[in-house]
Amino acid sequence: MWFLRRDRLLLVAALSALLAADVYFHLWPQLLQLTMGRSCDCGVRPTSRNFTPTAETPVMVIEWIPASKLHHLLSHPLYQAQGTMPPSYDRLLSPHEIMKSYKKRVTHQNRKRRGPRFEGNRTIPLTDSKSDPPAPWLQFHMEIDKDALYPRSSPVVDRLLQSMGNMMIIGADHTPDEKALNGECDCSQIVKPSGTHLKLILRFQDHAKAMFKPMRQSREDETPEDFFYFVDFQRHNAEIAAFHLDRILDFRRVPPVAGRLINLTSEILEVTTNQELESVFFVSPANNVCFFAKCLYMCKTEYAACGNPHMLEGSLSAFLPSLNFADRLSVPHPWIRSYTFAGKEEWETNPSYCDSVKTLPPYTNQKRLLGVMDLAVFDFLIGNMDRHHYETFTKFGEDGFLLHMDNARGFGRPFVDELSILAPLYQCCLVKEDTWLRLKLFTLNEYRLSDVMRESLQNDRLRDVLTESHLVALDRRLQKVLEVVDQCVQTHGTDAVIIKDAAPQHKTDQS
Amino acid sequence: MWFLRRDRLLLVAALSALLAADVYFHLWPQLLQLTMGRSCDCGVRPTSRNFTPTAETPVMVIEWIPASKLHHLLSHPLYQAQGTMPPSYDRLLSPHEIMKSYKKRVTHQNRKRRGPRFEGNRTIPLTDSKSDPPAPWLQFHMEIDKDALYPRSSPVVDRLLQSMGNMMIIGADHTPDEKALNGECDCSQIVKPSGTHLKLILRFQDHAKAMFKPMRQSREDETPEDFFYFVDFQRHNAEIAAFHLDRILDFRRVPPVAGRLINLTSEILEVTTNQELESVFFVSPANNVCFFAKCLYMCKTEYAACGNPHMLEGSLSAFLPSLNFADRLSVPHPWIRSYTFAGKEEWETNPSYCDSVKTLPPYTNQKRLLGVMDLAVFDFLIGNMDRHHYETFTKFGEDGFLLHMDNARGFGRPFVDELSILAPLYQCCLVKEDTWLRLKLFTLNEYRLSDVMRESLQNDRLRDVLTESHLVALDRRLQKVLEVVDQCVQTHGTDAVIIKDAAPQHKTDQS
Repeated sequence: MWFLRRDRLLLVAALSALLAADVYFHLWPQLLQLTMGRSCDCGVRPTSRNFTPTAETPVMVIEWIPASKLHHLLSHPLYQAQGTMPPSYDRLLSPHEIMKSYKKRVTHQNRKRRGPRFEGNRTIPLTDSKSDPPAPWLQFHMEIDKDALYPRSSPVVDRLLQSMGNMMIIGADHTPDEKALNGECDCSQIVKPSGTHLKLILRFQDHAKAMFKPMRQSREDETPEDFFYFVDFQRHNAEIAAFHLDRILDFRRVPPVAGRLINLTSEILEVTTNQELESVFFVSPANNVCFFAKCLYMCKTEYAACGNPHMLEGSLSAFLPSLNFADRLSVPHPWIRSYTFAGKEEWETNPSYCDSVKTLPPYTNQKRLLGVMDLAVFDFLIGNMDRHHYETFTKFGEDGFLLHMDNARGFGRPFVDELSILAPLYQCCLVKEDTWLRLKLFTLNEYRLSDVMRESLQNDRLRDVLTESHLVALDRRLQKVLEVVDQCVQTHGTDAVIIKDAAPQHKTDQS
Repeated sequence: MWFLRRDRLLLVAALSALLAADVYFHLWPQLLQLTMGRSCDCGVRPTSRNFTPTAETPVMVIEWIPASKLHHLLSHPLYQAQGTMPPSYDRLLSPHEIMKSYKKRVTHQNRKRRGPRFEGNRTIPLTDSKSDPPAPWLQFHMEIDKDALYPRSSPVVDRLLQSMGNMMIIGADHTPDEKALNGECDCSQIVKPSGTHLKLILRFQDHAKAMFKPMRQSREDETPEDFFYFVDFQRHNAEIAAFHLDRILDFRRVPPVAGRLINLTSEILEVTTNQELESVFFVSPANNVCFFAKCLYMCKTEYAACGNPHMLEGSLSAFLPSLNFADRLSVPHPWIRSYTFAGKEEWETNPSYCDSVKTLPPYTNQKRLLGVMDLAVFDFLIGNMDRHHYETFTKFGEDGFLLHMDNARGFGRPFVDELSILAPLYQCCLVKEDTWLRLKLFTLNEYRLSDVMRESLQNDRLRDVLTESHLVALDRRLQKVLEVVDQCVQTHGTDAVIIKDAAPQHKTDQS
């Protein structure tokens, strides 16, 4: 009996001990792994495919978080739909000019299609862009006004993005940069043509045009530390992300950009009528279709962009109206960097540099100066150091907004915050109240900038446009912008720094 | 009493169960990990810093393995010291020519030192290369004969390697390639100058000269699959490793190459008298000293080589005697590849191509043809597809050995064995008996090629010249070479394939 009782006890004790040990050695570590993240972190940085909570992300969220932070943002009073269409004198183009622009494109494309080199595609039907509703690119051009490239609530931008991502491509050509290299246009206007800059103009079935920049590096590749800002790679995903950010920040100064997987053979090589462009295509040793930038000196296939075997990601930036109808002014950025190896510009050594800028037109107009501040905030957030010029529409004079174009050199270093890009802000200590209010909004958990951006980018056809590190960098940099503004307010007072009304201080010559 | 006894038993049972559980859940998995390899294999390939046993490496070795496989190899009968110095008519240079070459260099350097741009370094004492024993570079030139660049047992090569790795650098200049770009020499002789080709001539205190190729990519970087062989990067470590391999294979046809950490500022920028060279130096945004290749079209700093902040690895290849005293012939390789995108050469489509090669001089001389076979084996082992030309010393005529120079495009793809490099071997089915015997030797564990190479490379001043993947590739490729020979022997018989005596079949015109 004693033996049996002891046996039973022993069995129970042994089983209990085994259970305890199993819980302690087996289940507990696994639970720990699940709660603490991956146990095997081999230096892989989180990507948007592989979200890991950041230090700033609370594990338990008590407050109510809307399912879509982007929708929540767009319903905020600061993002309320604008009123009726602006009066015609505030719009960039008159209906007459739009029709002229349209007819010019149609004539140009029809002439090309009649050429001897267009046998294969002459049968592709072109669509009538004037039909009701007009083609998205025409609507986009119609809606450009003195405040922004597109109205806050306009459905046109999404239609344009969709058509650029879907529509049949019927033509491809070199950009004017490439043509300059072949002596076809004035080279003095061309900035830094280089073997690494590959971009093409694509034409769509509805007569729309877009600038195509192919993928050159993986999402995880970072700008090498020895690279100057002016030789950095151009990133197609930076163009896409910059458009989304500019729209989220409510600047609306970047022409719509869509990502798309392009078939290099059927959508470029087979639809171009330019023999020069055809000649830069080749099949790589790995049997992939590639093309490189034509250059005077020699053809550098080592800098080619290659498909897999035909398909390659790229960005498509919508074209603005032709310069013939809406001329633009290219203005050197007052905080331009030195494009030499060791040179320094005045702003880099003179902390009072802004005082002299303020005395020079067009910056005597505070609206223009505030536009430069917005651009500095935008460039700091995307990490773009290569803003040597900006453009404005000539029609709107000094009151016109600054175009935020050419952002392919942003998003190169997710772990570096280049504070010197904020020099206009910390040297002038000025910021539009609208901009400042929105920036503050994005620090709130329910509107967190990285979350809104992640959500917005999911609307693009390309996956994981930005890595998680770049998204996290946006939140970190946003904090730094606000710290600079706070410092300014402490020194100069709120009224001197946060500018409520950005009305022009004087009438410009052009207006 | 019962209570106490039961308590004790329970305690013992619980402790035993815990111990068992610990052993089972904790120690056993750890033991499994240790025996089965890393549990967390995140795709990190083994490097020479991080040796992991390969599938071919036995865990337990019963046979006796010599401590130094390299020493063991050199004591093998196939590697016995050669006899006395060859007769003077078999040597490349006469003592008279060597003295003329020496005096020319001294005069040239002294003239440079008297120039106005040499203020800083005029005080560096030059050494007398004729002293006893003469400078290593002079001895190296003296020993070149009709069989090889250096005798098997000569101590001169190690002295030369040591002096290139240590000796004060007193001058730096562009190579003729770079000078051609600046219109200083005949461009028609220049093959593919490009922004990515950075090489400089360095001059030493003892009047020696060496070709410097800087490090451009990390050891782990592989040639992208879309790169053509003719645009691949040049790798300094490939130059070093190719020299060691050529020496181990007993070809002795690669001029000695030493690795060295170079101070770009004090050892190049401050000692050059060439203003053009000075002008390509700059300090990068990360404060590193960099230089780029001068090019006619534009200076591409994105392809610069940068120190950290001054120091940069590079390879130093000893110069051969001047062409004025020992002219060389540059011969197009009969199995040259097409240097166009889609072209194919005859050998790629005609399996009987070798029959026509054999009928054409200089390949009517079987010694020359066997030299091409050796070169094919060497290029296959290093993975070099860019052998468009080879050089021979004019003096030795068709009997002269083929120089194995310019190997910087080897060792680019450790996981690819490019069998087409062996086309000469499998199309002609010929191999020198000497070469074949040595190749077989390296398949034995006690002479394993990867082990001997690893050991030989440890003599270089740079660490981990080749990654473990590249070393393992050598063993794998060696097997493939021997398989090709075996196949030939099965088809044509041993005597027709393994050529015992490589004596010339006829006298050449030049000899």
